[in-house]
Amino acid sequence: MIIILKQGATDREIEPIRNYLKTQNVIIQDIQGETTKMIGLAGDTSKIAEDSLLTFNSVERIMRVQEPYKLAGRKFHPQDTVIEAGGVKVGGGNFAVAAGPCSVESEEQILAIAKDVKTSGAKFLRGGAFKPRTSPYSFMGLGLEGLEFLKIARAKTGLPIVTEIMSPQYLEAFAENVDIIQIGARNSQNFTLLSEVGRLKKPVLLKRGISGTIEELLMSAEYLMAAGSPDIILCERGIRTFETATRNTLDLSAVPVLKAKSHLPVFVDPSHGTGHWSLVESMSLAAAACGADGLEIEVHNHPEAALSDGAQSLTPQVFDRLMRKMERVREAIA
Amino acid sequence: MIIILKQGATDREIEPIRNYLKTQNVIIQDIQGETTKMIGLAGDTSKIAEDSLLTFNSVERIMRVQEPYKLAGRKFHPQDTVIEAGGVKVGGGNFAVAAGPCSVESEEQILAIAKDVKTSGAKFLRGGAFKPRTSPYSFMGLGLEGLEFLKIARAKTGLPIVTEIMSPQYLEAFAENVDIIQIGARNSQNFTLLSEVGRLKKPVLLKRGISGTIEELLMSAEYLMAAGSPDIILCERGIRTFETATRNTLDLSAVPVLKAKSHLPVFVDPSHGTGHWSLVESMSLAAAACGADGLEIEVHNHPEAALSDGAQSLTPQVFDRLMRKMERVREAIA
Amino acid sequence: MIIILKQGATDREIEPIRNYLKTQNVIIQDIQGETTKMIGLAGDTSKIAEDSLLTFNSVERIMRVQEPYKLAGRKFHPQDTVIEAGGVKVGGGNFAVAAGPCSVESEEQILAIAKDVKTSGAKFLRGGAFKPRTSPYSFMGLGLEGLEFLKIARAKTGLPIVTEIMSPQYLEAFAENVDIIQIGARNSQNFTLLSEVGRLKKPVLLKRGISGTIEELLMSAEYLMAAGSPDIILCERGIRTFETATRNTLDLSAVPVLKAKSHLPVFVDPSHGTGHWSLVESMSLAAAACGADGLEIEVHNHPEAALSDGAQSLTPQVFDRLMRKMERVREAIA
Amino acid sequence: MIIILKQGATDREIEPIRNYLKTQNVIIQDIQGETTKMIGLAGDTSKIAEDSLLTFNSVERIMRVQEPYKLAGRKFHPQDTVIEAGGVKVGGGNFAVAAGPCSVESEEQILAIAKDVKTSGAKFLRGGAFKPRTSPYSFMGLGLEGLEFLKIARAKTGLPIVTEIMSPQYLEAFAENVDIIQIGARNSQNFTLLSEVGRLKKPVLLKRGISGTIEELLMSAEYLMAAGSPDIILCERGIRTFETATRNTLDLSAVPVLKAKSHLPVFVDPSHGTGHWSLVESMSLAAAACGADGLEIEVHNHPEAALSDGAQSLTPQVFDRLMRKMERVREAIA
Repeated sequence: MIIILKQGATDREIEPIRNYLKTQNVIIQDIQGETTKMIGLAGDTSKIAEDSLLTFNSVERIMRVQEPYKLAGRKFHPQDTVIEAGGVKVGGGNFAVAAGPCSVESEEQILAIAKDVKTSGAKFLRGGAFKPRTSPYSFMGLGLEGLEFLKIARAKTGLPIVTEIMSPQYLEAFAENVDIIQIGARNSQNFTLLSEVGRLKKPVLLKRGISGTIEELLMSAEYLMAAGSPDIILCERGIRTFETATRNTLDLSAVPVLKAKSHLPVFVDPSHGTGHWSLVESMSLAAAACGADGLEIEVHNHPEAALSDGAQSLTPQVFDRLMRKMERVREAIA
Repeated sequence: MIIILKQGATDREIEPIRNYLKTQNVIIQDIQGETTKMIGLAGDTSKIAEDSLLTFNSVERIMRVQEPYKLAGRKFHPQDTVIEAGGVKVGGGNFAVAAGPCSVESEEQILAIAKDVKTSGAKFLRGGAFKPRTSPYSFMGLGLEGLEFLKIARAKTGLPIVTEIMSPQYLEAFAENVDIIQIGARNSQNFTLLSEVGRLKKPVLLKRGISGTIEELLMSAEYLMAAGSPDIILCERGIRTFETATRNTLDLSAVPVLKAKSHLPVFVDPSHGTGHWSLVESMSLAAAACGADGLEIEVHNHPEAALSDGAQSLTPQVFDRLMRKMERVREAIA
Repeated sequence: MIIILKQGATDREIEPIRNYLKTQNVIIQDIQGETTKMIGLAGDTSKIAEDSLLTFNSVERIMRVQEPYKLAGRKFHPQDTVIEAGGVKVGGGNFAVAAGPCSVESEEQILAIAKDVKTSGAKFLRGGAFKPRTSPYSFMGLGLEGLEFLKIARAKTGLPIVTEIMSPQYLEAFAENVDIIQIGARNSQNFTLLSEVGRLKKPVLLKRGISGTIEELLMSAEYLMAAGSPDIILCERGIRTFETATRNTLDLSAVPVLKAKSHLPVFVDPSHGTGHWSLVESMSLAAAACGADGLEIEVHNHPEAALSDGAQSLTPQVFDRLMRKMERVREAIA
Repeated sequence: MIIILKQGATDREIEPIRNYLKTQNVIIQDIQGETTKMIGLAGDTSKIAEDSLLTFNSVERIMRVQEPYKLAGRKFHPQDTVIEAGGVKVGGGNFAVAAGPCSVESEEQILAIAKDVKTSGAKFLRGGAFKPRTSPYSFMGLGLEGLEFLKIARAKTGLPIVTEIMSPQYLEAFAENVDIIQIGARNSQNFTLLSEVGRLKKPVLLKRGISGTIEELLMSAEYLMAAGSPDIILCERGIRTFETATRNTLDLSAVPVLKAKSHLPVFVDPSHGTGHWSLVESMSLAAAACGADGLEIEVHNHPEAALSDGAQSLTPQVFDRLMRKMERVREAIA
């Protein structure tokens, strides 16, 4: 941590800062800048609050050098983490696609889609039982009944289930029944939920916040890991920008950035990332080409009748063609 | 709702859309555009899912005309809502400032600050008992003990309390003890929490999401209102942009926009909105000048020792000067 | 164009709007919305200023249906445009990479790099003679001398030249000597420059603005085309967002969006798009996988000594490996 | 400048960096961080290119300490700059409003508006002779004829003129005839234009770029000042964000930030900043309340017939009321 002092700060003005730092058990170094003095801190600075330092009148600003995450970072964990969920490996070269409808609508629907996506090569079945909706008047999912339908589809196809949790109220149901617990974009910084889900020690698919930075995503992973869950899949799903031609701006450069900073597997969700099914194929291929460990893709057998997000769902036929192209792309970069 | 069809879409291609719409009990109108055909819908379109329409091949895009919120909108509720919380009125000309520390740290601290801000004219005492923190290793507030200290400060000063809820786990404690329940920026689209807090029918201070649109803020208010709580204060607290000179970009134009679209009172939080105490005074005056119904301001008696957000806290002296200036500004625009 | 009227607007209030519209030679249609009246306009609405309509008191807002660009749009030009520059074809299946240093620094430098990138398969030599720099104290390029060095490199390697114009002052020099004239991100809405460059009727590589929307990029292409230049390459180069882990956020979904809306070839610049050489390979592969017609990549033989943008330059060795991987990706999606 | 080295970088790997730095005539200091080594540089680091440093394999990242602007910064010029243009003072306590139509449309129009805004207390007449337009098919202003009309209005009212330059072609005409030369948001980083306008040594009103940072605005001012023009007015005019309820997001916190970092006067343009005339009054009052040195406001006598930007123009009556309220606000904060 480096403290940059205001230009012209006198030794007397800096004195109180020094005194404060001396109580903090850190190593203090004087640094001379171009026109400013600085103080460098070594040792364990984790207890020092930047906010407090900023309130000293002679402090201009603070530059943090160290990354704020530890468990999620590659620095102390250089090798790729490989997660196993429902018998399927993810990460460290194990590529996996989770496919299925935005919402579970009926037993027949989820079963039909599960069979289709399994045939095309999906390794996980995704489907929402609880749905976050901007409007209180929209369909919010079948809830626990949806979870039952997912379990039936898993029993009949063997595909492990990925589904989103929205409330601590259902922790037990998810712990018992779900293979990978999804934390959605709007809950990416719901710290209470992160801590509680982390305690389950189950695999988690953690989505980047709607305007979450890459560092915030890693800090949310840190929450889950600090609470006890080592098996986190990070998921890029598009960020909010000024561009309105797409629902979100899919930030594919987050894939190599996350792979460099963290040992955790990285997924991409091109369906929410773009909001248009016609963009899903090209963005899926791009995600595979830039090194993603997997994808989460919306597939619906009757997109025009979907109760949510039909516009971004692929038909099973289009999904099948995509999976074959994607395999060729993965071979090309191998 | 207007459906814009793809250029060159034939009647035969449009047929399935018409058939679908006929089952939806809406009035269908043909519209001719410059080079495209359109279909206008009148009547109750609330059951029609845009997403489903977009999956018809001949649909180019959908334009929604109607606002998606009803209870929060001024359209059906033209007069300003006046909220009463702990005996204090807010909105409809009743200006009120909530002031206090970011975190409640001790009984002495909160009591000293409460006395100071009351003397300067604050109408509410704010203070965090539960704190959302980006890092799992940061101070997260005193929890229920913090709530007790707030109650003591209220008892001794008469100031009603505003404090943030982070989890449904504490609904009962908040229902009993808190005058205005705050929903923070990171929980602004925590729909589960919104519904549960709404059921308490208590006054709520709802913050705009970190990258929340004005419409999303109103939709979150709609969640609270649909669940039963009519007394919502909307709060602009800065949005995330590319600018790094400030912690967030305080969007003061949201104040007149919200006042035009909604009947609910609008607050501004210049402390989180800027992240620097030196900007709080000018932004507070600006908020008052553009018609805000109140402010939420961080005040700390020892900012340099604050356990969180010290950098954006005012001392009681600076707060007092600000309150006097602000009163003059309010008179100037009266 | 659809005019949405304020709720409760009476016929008498709407009368002046109707009268105005009657003078504009357009077809007027009444539309009934859910709770609002609307007026639809057909025919040639290009002369109607939205801004003027918005000043009528009873107008709530305007919804434009038609795209504002014509020459650049695919609607009236369904087949892909193939551009020929210096004997090299671009677009319509012709993939091309422009490679070279950010700045031309000397005859030896540009010649050595030109030979290297040609061997690796580049089809164009890029290099800046005039450099836009944020600071007036930075190196701004060799100017016309740099152009001479580029010509020497072209003569010796046969690679056509792509280089950026910054001022109308050099129009003649660019018209005579440059194969593809580049318009940089900061000049993407320099309308004077666009019109003047368009008059040269030469191939142009047009970069998206730093915070330019996809529609604005197409409108800037429209400027060039309306002035006489039909051969425009659109170039995605990253947009400005809140994320600071990368220099810009490369918006690869712009590639399929642009290909759908326009017949013009689409390039991607992963060097400026990310700002870090270590991200260029993965983003180049992703760009190729999602259907880009070409790339512009920075290559420098001594990146550590580059006078500008060394951090985002590849060495010739890394570039060579990338070109081979990229060919495999292109085959995979063929 | 501080160079942060990669974790685990050995002395041998750092050696080439040290050798490079030794040739740069700067003072080199070793710094120990929490888990990383760093190198601090003192002395004149202005010749050291960050980009080049980043290409050394053992460099993690660079932290710049010093501001990149000098002439525009308050550090070496603590007192406020007072500009005099056409006999009117701006800055250092001299508040001034520039008002007038977006576009000059006729002699009668500009003269009528000039008289009105003068009566209401405007100190400058603004009006566009050359208009930047997104579409090549829109009205682009009357050009030099518009300049003549502005001169007539100045002669008859005594109000000095502010108008925008778009091309170096008209430098001479602006030098002779215009009191304050405006550089628009889209040309805020047109470095060629900045240098050429700077050479005229005339007062300049410099707008922030559409997605320009505060630092970039100061660097563009630095361009003008380095070229010879000391009299720059900085102008906040809204930045591009995800919010669509307003045309731009007016960043009023830029006012106190700019006043702290720079000695130059700061204006606010609430008309472009919001895009809706109904928001102009409240945002103008807010700008005055937070310390702006002046405003630029669009006023049109027949907004519904304006050839551009009618939607954001005030009528002379509304402008007059605003000016009186604003005076009261200015007194309140004095």
